[in-house]
Amino acid sequence: MPKSRVEAFSDGVFAVAITLLVLDLHPPSTKASLLAALADAWPEFAAFAVSFAVIGIIWVNHHGVFHRIARVDRTLLFLNLGLLMTVVLIPFVTALFALYIAHAGEQADLAGALFNSDFTLVALFFTAINLRADSQALVHANVPPVSSAQRIRFSAGTAAYVLCIPLSFASPLLAFIIDGVVAAYYVADQLGSRALTDT
Amino acid sequence: MPKSRVEAFSDGVFAVAITLLVLDLHPPSTKASLLAALADAWPEFAAFAVSFAVIGIIWVNHHGVFHRIARVDRTLLFLNLGLLMTVVLIPFVTALFALYIAHAGEQADLAGALFNSDFTLVALFFTAINLRADSQALVHANVPPVSSAQRIRFSAGTAAYVLCIPLSFASPLLAFIIDGVVAAYYVADQLGSRALTDT
Amino acid sequence: MPKSRVEAFSDGVFAVAITLLVLDLHPPSTKASLLAALADAWPEFAAFAVSFAVIGIIWVNHHGVFHRIARVDRTLLFLNLGLLMTVVLIPFVTALFALYIAHAGEQADLAGALFNSDFTLVALFFTAINLRADSQALVHANVPPVSSAQRIRFSAGTAAYVLCIPLSFASPLLAFIIDGVVAAYYVADQLGSRALTDT
Amino acid sequence: MPKSRVEAFSDGVFAVAITLLVLDLHPPSTKASLLAALADAWPEFAAFAVSFAVIGIIWVNHHGVFHRIARVDRTLLFLNLGLLMTVVLIPFVTALFALYIAHAGEQADLAGALFNSDFTLVALFFTAINLRADSQALVHANVPPVSSAQRIRFSAGTAAYVLCIPLSFASPLLAFIIDGVVAAYYVADQLGSRALTDT
Repeated sequence: MPKSRVEAFSDGVFAVAITLLVLDLHPPSTKASLLAALADAWPEFAAFAVSFAVIGIIWVNHHGVFHRIARVDRTLLFLNLGLLMTVVLIPFVTALFALYIAHAGEQADLAGALFNSDFTLVALFFTAINLRADSQALVHANVPPVSSAQRIRFSAGTAAYVLCIPLSFASPLLAFIIDGVVAAYYVADQLGSRALTDT
Repeated sequence: MPKSRVEAFSDGVFAVAITLLVLDLHPPSTKASLLAALADAWPEFAAFAVSFAVIGIIWVNHHGVFHRIARVDRTLLFLNLGLLMTVVLIPFVTALFALYIAHAGEQADLAGALFNSDFTLVALFFTAINLRADSQALVHANVPPVSSAQRIRFSAGTAAYVLCIPLSFASPLLAFIIDGVVAAYYVADQLGSRALTDT
Repeated sequence: MPKSRVEAFSDGVFAVAITLLVLDLHPPSTKASLLAALADAWPEFAAFAVSFAVIGIIWVNHHGVFHRIARVDRTLLFLNLGLLMTVVLIPFVTALFALYIAHAGEQADLAGALFNSDFTLVALFFTAINLRADSQALVHANVPPVSSAQRIRFSAGTAAYVLCIPLSFASPLLAFIIDGVVAAYYVADQLGSRALTDT
Repeated sequence: MPKSRVEAFSDGVFAVAITLLVLDLHPPSTKASLLAALADAWPEFAAFAVSFAVIGIIWVNHHGVFHRIARVDRTLLFLNLGLLMTVVLIPFVTALFALYIAHAGEQADLAGALFNSDFTLVALFFTAINLRADSQALVHANVPPVSSAQRIRFSAGTAAYVLCIPLSFASPLLAFIIDGVVAAYYVADQLGSRALTDT
C-alpha cells in the first residue's frame, strides 16, 4: 500500500465528510418569520462553521503529518483508519450539539462533552500516528523534526478540547465558544505564513 | 502541500456537492396527479438546474484560476477552504430558495437574498484568491495575465449576484430568473470556444 | 483543463452517485413481518440493482469514450457536465419509479417515462460527445474508430430506452423489466471479452 | 481501462460508503435523558463501528488483491462492480440490523441474516476476482502467490460470516457479537506487521 493511496483515500473521506456537514442544515419550513426561524437555528450554522473549519484544519494537518512520513506500516494504516472514523463522526456530533444548544435545555452538557470528546480523539490519533512513525523510523531521513512551536501549538489545541469536556457540564455554551475560538486561532495562525511549495 | 493536492481535494468537494444536489429533489408521494405534484415542485427542479450549472461553472473557473498559480501559501489554502465552504452551502441555499418559491409566500425574499449572497461570497473568494496570488507572486512566470474580457465577464456575473440580493426583496422570482440567465450565459459563452488542451 | 481532470471529476461524480443509490433503500420499521415488508419493497431493491448496473455501465462507457479523445474543448466540457447532470438525477428517478411501482397505482406510468427519459438523455449526451470529438478532430490519431458492432449495440440500448418511454404508459412494469434486461445484457455482453490493458 | 482507474473508482466508492455510515446515526431528540436515549441507541453505534471496520478492512484487502493484478479484463471489471454493489449496500444492512436489534424484537433474526449475507457476498466477490485473475494469468509474474496463512485467515473470516447467517435465527445478538470479534481480529492481526512499502 503506497503512501499516496492512504493520502488519496483519506482526502476522499475528508472531502465527503466536510460536504456532508451541509445535511445538518435544515431549511426551516415556517409560515411565520423565516428570519426568526433562521435566527433560532443559529447553533446549526455556528456548529457548521466550527466543524467545517475543524475538518479543514485536520486536512491541512494530515498532509503535514504525512509529508514527514516515508513508509506506511499496517499499524499506521489502522491508526489512520481510527483517525478517519473520528472524522466521519464529526457530522453526527455536530448535529447533536447544535440540536441541544438550540433546545437550550441542560442536556447540551452531554452533547458538548461528546462533541469535544470526538475532537480530543482526533488529536490522540494524530499523536499516535506521529509516535508510531517516529518509533518505527518510518519518517523521511531528510525531513526536519516537528518544531517546538508546532508541538506547543498542537498540545494547546488538544488541551483546549480536553478541558472543554468537563467544561461542557458547567457551561456548554462557553465550551462551544472556546471551540470556535480555537478553530479561528488555528486558521488565523496559518494566514501569515509563507509560501509552502512549488508546483 | 503541493498544488495538485489542493486541486484534488477541491475537486472532491465539488463532485460531492454537485451530486448532493439530488437530495434536494423529493419524489412526491401523492394519490392525486403525480404530474400536477411534479409541476408544483418546479422550483426544486429549476433550482437544481441553476445550482448544478453554477457548481459546474465554479469547477471550470477553479481550474482556470489554479492553472495560473505556481505555488500555494497557507493564506491561499485557507481562502480556498473559504471558497469550498460557500460551495458546500449551495445545496442548503438551493433547498431553501426552492422551498419558499414553491410556497409562493413573501418569505421567498429572504431565501432569495441568501441564495444570491452565497453566490456573491463564491465570487469574492475567487477574487481574494486571485489578488493573493498576484500580490505574493505565486503565479507562473509564463502564464499570461487574465484578459480584460475575462475580467469584465467575471465582474458582470458578480455584479448580477450582488444586485439580485436587494432585488430578491422586490421580486424573488425575477432574481431567480436572472440567476438562471447568468448561468445559461456562462455556459453558452463557453460553448463556442476552441480546444483547450492536449492530453 | 487536461483530459485527466475531466475524467477524475466525472469518476468522482459517478462514485458519489452510485453510492447515494443506497439512500433510496429504507429499512422498513414494522412490528409485523419484516420479510413481508421487505418483499413489499421489492421495487426499491430491483430499481437499486438496475440503476447501479446502469451507472456502472455508464462509467465503463465513459472511459471508452474518453480513451479515444485526445483533447477537450469547452463545448465537450459542458456536454460532459450535461451528461453528469443526467447521472446525478438517476438516484431521484430511481426513487420515484420505485415508489410508484410499489404503490401499484397508475401513476407509475409517468414515473417510468421519466426514469427512461433520463436514461435516454444519458445516451444522447454520449452521442453528442462522440459527434463533437469527431467533428472537431479531438480524437487520437492512432485510435481505431468505433466498430459497427459497438455502434449497433449502443443504438439498440438507446432505442430500448426511447421505446420504454411510451411503453411506460401501456405497462410500467414491462418497461421496468426491459430496463433490467437491457442492463443485464450489457453486463453479460462484457463478461466474455478479453483482457483490456496492462498496468 | 487501466488498473489505476479501477482502483481509483473503487477507492472513491469505499470513501463515500464509509462516510455515509454516519447518516445511520440519528441524534435522539428527547426532553428526557439524552444519556438514556444514546444508551438505548447502542446498536446504532456498535453497528457503525463494526461496519466502519469492515469497509476499512475491505479497502485494505482490495489493495492487496489489486497489487497482485497486472491486467484487468472486462469480466474482472464487472466482478469488481459486483463487489462495489455489496459494499454500497453495507450502510443499508447496517441501519436495518441496528434498527431491529434496538427494537429487541424477534425480527432481528432476518435483519442479522441479511447483514451477514451481504458480508458473505463481499467475500465471494473477492474470491471470484482472485480466481478470475489466476485462471486468466492476469497477475504480475513477479508477485508471490497468496500465502497459505492468508488463505486460511480469509477463509476463516468468510466461514464466520456464512455461519452467522443461520446463527442469526438462533441468536441475532450472538451473531452480531461474532461480527464484531471477527472485525476486531482482522484489525488486531494487522497491527503487529512490518512496514509495507516505501514512498
